[in-house]
Amino acid sequence: GIDATRFLHRLRTLAAIGRDDQGRRTRLAASDADRAGRDAVAGWMREAGLAVEIDWIGNLIGLWCPAGAQGAPVMMGSHIDTVIDAGAYDGCAGVLAGIGVVEALRDAGEIPARPLAVAAFTNEEGVRYAPDMLGSLVYAGGLPPEEALATVGTDGTRLGEELARIGYAGPQAPGFLVPHAYVELHVEQGPVLEREGIAIGAVETLQGISWQEVVIEGTANHAGTTPMSLRQDAGVAAAGLVTWLRERARRGNGRSVATIGRLRLEPDAINVIPGRAVLTVDLRDPDADALARLEADVAARLQEIARAEGVAVSVRRLARFDPVTFDPGLVRAIEAAAGARGLSTRRMTSGAGHDAQMMARLCPAAMIFVPSRDGISHNPREFTADADLVAGADVLLDVVRRIAAG
Amino acid sequence: GIDATRFLHRLRTLAAIGRDDQGRRTRLAASDADRAGRDAVAGWMREAGLAVEIDWIGNLIGLWCPAGAQGAPVMMGSHIDTVIDAGAYDGCAGVLAGIGVVEALRDAGEIPARPLAVAAFTNEEGVRYAPDMLGSLVYAGGLPPEEALATVGTDGTRLGEELARIGYAGPQAPGFLVPHAYVELHVEQGPVLEREGIAIGAVETLQGISWQEVVIEGTANHAGTTPMSLRQDAGVAAAGLVTWLRERARRGNGRSVATIGRLRLEPDAINVIPGRAVLTVDLRDPDADALARLEADVAARLQEIARAEGVAVSVRRLARFDPVTFDPGLVRAIEAAAGARGLSTRRMTSGAGHDAQMMARLCPAAMIFVPSRDGISHNPREFTADADLVAGADVLLDVVRRIAAG
Ligand SMILES: NC(=O)NCCC(=O)O
Ligand SMILES: NC(=O)NCCC(=O)O
Repeated sequence: GIDATRFLHRLRTLAAIGRDDQGRRTRLAASDADRAGRDAVAGWMREAGLAVEIDWIGNLIGLWCPAGAQGAPVMMGSHIDTVIDAGAYDGCAGVLAGIGVVEALRDAGEIPARPLAVAAFTNEEGVRYAPDMLGSLVYAGGLPPEEALATVGTDGTRLGEELARIGYAGPQAPGFLVPHAYVELHVEQGPVLEREGIAIGAVETLQGISWQEVVIEGTANHAGTTPMSLRQDAGVAAAGLVTWLRERARRGNGRSVATIGRLRLEPDAINVIPGRAVLTVDLRDPDADALARLEADVAARLQEIARAEGVAVSVRRLARFDPVTFDPGLVRAIEAAAGARGLSTRRMTSGAGHDAQMMARLCPAAMIFVPSRDGISHNPREFTADADLVAGADVLLDVVRRIAAG
Repeated sequence: GIDATRFLHRLRTLAAIGRDDQGRRTRLAASDADRAGRDAVAGWMREAGLAVEIDWIGNLIGLWCPAGAQGAPVMMGSHIDTVIDAGAYDGCAGVLAGIGVVEALRDAGEIPARPLAVAAFTNEEGVRYAPDMLGSLVYAGGLPPEEALATVGTDGTRLGEELARIGYAGPQAPGFLVPHAYVELHVEQGPVLEREGIAIGAVETLQGISWQEVVIEGTANHAGTTPMSLRQDAGVAAAGLVTWLRERARRGNGRSVATIGRLRLEPDAINVIPGRAVLTVDLRDPDADALARLEADVAARLQEIARAEGVAVSVRRLARFDPVTFDPGLVRAIEAAAGARGLSTRRMTSGAGHDAQMMARLCPAAMIFVPSRDGISHNPREFTADADLVAGADVLLDVVRRIAAG
């Protein structure tokens, strides 16, 4: 198995990097905190004997190409950028387990038939720059690098400039290594494995994701002098969407989820009727048609709100990914590896987006999930037990050992 | 009458002071922009021959005490702080008209029997520091100066420190001059005068104001992995209050107004269910009992929301003022002065809060309103025609001339 102590120690070290001014773990993509995290990871990659490569979009890829290994590499990986006020495991577990797998093979003197690679992809979270999984999307050829580098973040910065600033705009063309296969370990971030008492999830599908930004323009006016009947309140209009969307998601097929995570009012003053509201809409469904219906209903509802409230509404698409099916052979390999270690396992779908879904455009891909306590993620309370993390990393080792063998 | 050209020129000069980084007119109390506005106003006061005094809470008071004048002064005034993205007239018209009144009397060689004073009160808007009308409230003895100076603003600053920083923490004790009477000219900020084609409003009442800050604590979690049924979404809870409150205000006596002007979500990330929402509630009603019922209904609704959404709710009071009745003699004096100039007039209530309502605790007080185009205020489109402003200033002159005579 992998060196559990070293793996867990690195995970804790990385978790301590990147506190914001409120003391929250916030390692947004291409920020100073991300740089510090990347520096640590690149150092561990070098320690593990990996050659560290950076591509134009900042993807950090460690390559182990021992004498005798040949052909397309088997790639592991995930991301180390985080949301705001994040947990310690999301993404980091997959990157560090990948490094641990390489070390385990080296330490055991096992030379794989294929090279191995470990990737930390840029801006998986999508919190600073949309879309999410941006680095792996570019790597897989799904978005031109120039376009991705020009992306403007929530803070008005450009991704390309920020990558250059932190020293992670590299010389490699994204996609410079086309893997033989890609396998990603990740914490589930949802409640299923814990509830069912299962150690390992073999992820076979990943739901569709739709992100939009909605701008509502009303009329700022005085909170005291403006009768209720004469208002065009952008905040009331936005709130109408929030409450409706929750009911719509509940009323659907029982699998849709819908979230309004950002909402900003302008001018944001206690005695001024909001003249403008800017909000984000995150819609997800495992079924492509159901997701499209949800989007259509949101669009129709926004028109109704515009009419009823006397406001103007405009929409900008931030991300749109159809549901993904992972490689059945890899899924079976994960199940088999878990079974051989006596670990309980189930097939499952992923509620979150992952780099593996982008890499699936380029090569066979699949994911290994380990349980998340209380199904909490994107929250500092995110937690996965050490034993579960190590079990997941060992399954990753076994799967990679097998597919890199021939 | 007053010197219209000088009055309007100063109004335009002051309107150009204090652009924020987005180019918006934003002269928040005790900010650098406020200092620049104060410096201009203090200069004009000195030009008019007024002795400029500053009190502990930063109220700027110009005093004209000509030889022969004696007794308590007649005070005019208003404020020059603004909301965010403000209009040009709100408050400024009253301060500059006051200076113009002094000049008109001096220029005409008229010596009033009583001294005259012109006040620019600190933080009338209440946008940076709550409550609104803070400077005049302290001046009238309604809030201890130490408490007011310790007020923490929306940006985390303390009012006392900011006043010292901008050089407007003065040596006078608030209330150092107890006026014989206080008369304030102000733009209506509402639609009534324009709709009825009336030039001058004689304000006889002012509605009650209730401000609260509400904090809703839910659970931040992953937007993709968390089923709708397992969420404690602080944003959904907040939106439920917003939509309910609008219906409640509409359903009332037809006079209540209710506004949620600020709403902040945390962590404010596209794929994170909001774990926290912070919002403000502004409730107003001309009837004290109706306002109290509205407040009770909000409190009850928040309890329901807490139960239904599984969130924790806490409330902090920011301002609470009962409806005010102005001095009937002064109201009649305003009507009479307008009538004598052939201006149409009506008695009315004020939807906005004003420094006059605080000064009414200290001495007879009343207000003169002039029309606001389209009833728009707290918006850069706020507009009052020059002729209406000058007519209002002339009525102020006539009223002050009369009450300062004996
Ligand atoms: N795994 C994960 O949290 N991905 C972030 C992108 C998303 O699903 O919102
Ligand atoms: N006149 C005016 O806009 N006052 C601000 C205080 C308020 O009424 O909200």
